[in-house]
Amino acid sequence: MNLIEIDLEEEYKFRGKIINLKIQKVQLPNGNTSTREIVEHPGGVAIIAFVDVDTIILVEQFRKPIDKVILEIPAGKLEKGEDPRECGIRELEEETGYKATAFEYLGKIVTTPGFSNEYIYFYKATNLYSGNIGGDEDEFINVHQYKLSEIKEMIKKGEIIDGKTIAALSLL
Amino acid sequence: MNLIEIDLEEEYKFRGKIINLKIQKVQLPNGNTSTREIVEHPGGVAIIAFVDVDTIILVEQFRKPIDKVILEIPAGKLEKGEDPRECGIRELEEETGYKATAFEYLGKIVTTPGFSNEYIYFYKATNLYSGNIGGDEDEFINVHQYKLSEIKEMIKKGEIIDGKTIAALSLL
Repeated sequence: MNLIEIDLEEEYKFRGKIINLKIQKVQLPNGNTSTREIVEHPGGVAIIAFVDVDTIILVEQFRKPIDKVILEIPAGKLEKGEDPRECGIRELEEETGYKATAFEYLGKIVTTPGFSNEYIYFYKATNLYSGNIGGDEDEFINVHQYKLSEIKEMIKKGEIIDGKTIAALSLL
Repeated sequence: MNLIEIDLEEEYKFRGKIINLKIQKVQLPNGNTSTREIVEHPGGVAIIAFVDVDTIILVEQFRKPIDKVILEIPAGKLEKGEDPRECGIRELEEETGYKATAFEYLGKIVTTPGFSNEYIYFYKATNLYSGNIGGDEDEFINVHQYKLSEIKEMIKKGEIIDGKTIAALSLL
């Protein structure tokens, strides 16, 4: 069955610092029309950073949309026109204070293809050394180290619920 | 370090069929103020449905936000007040035509805690039997069956990029 929807008019309802929201009118495969509510997001990069062979960095951060402090792999948004690899190197240092000698691409995901265009690109960072922590002035982060075996246990117990973190680890 | 952000005023910029968007002013841990752009989403349910011991159902669907047809595990949005388990049973039948005798909770994720409050609840469905396909009139879906080993290979090759699908499989 043909599944493609054809673009008709679009109307922006919001343009923000980070996201935009538009209503996209589409022609459905059966010829009818419908509307899609679409959040435009610049995309992001997330990093599995190994401090030794079986220990990685997780950051603890308050996430206002869910009103919870959660554990995640370090991650950040792509600046306009920024290369995902450069973004990963920058965000890892800003959030954790570490630079990495080796930075290997692991794959990408779409986080919410039903309502946003966000892609997240994953990298594996190894051979870490100290850089300068700091960056976004409205970001507050605690940096932790966990063994991969502990993390697997925490995912099983529901103590780690961040989708990109769980997906990233399965791409290792 | 204290990470909590305190709610100040909020302002809705958009209320839609599926998502709302608000600007939440917050007091940061250091006493400064900032704003967060937040997408409210009702949350969803996704199902790993086993047709035999090592074969599951994937659905192929056009996702307008990314302008691509992608493969995903069957999933759908929670109706207002709907129990996730009931939602999973309903969506599995609507999207694939299958009902399941056994429906086991696997865990939950947040998809995009940086900008939305969406949770996805995962279930494992087994002992499938035929029900009635159909449901949302603006949803067009092709139903497929794949071996878990094929799916792992497709994830590794970047042929499956859906974050919830990749996360769900690692919760099995």
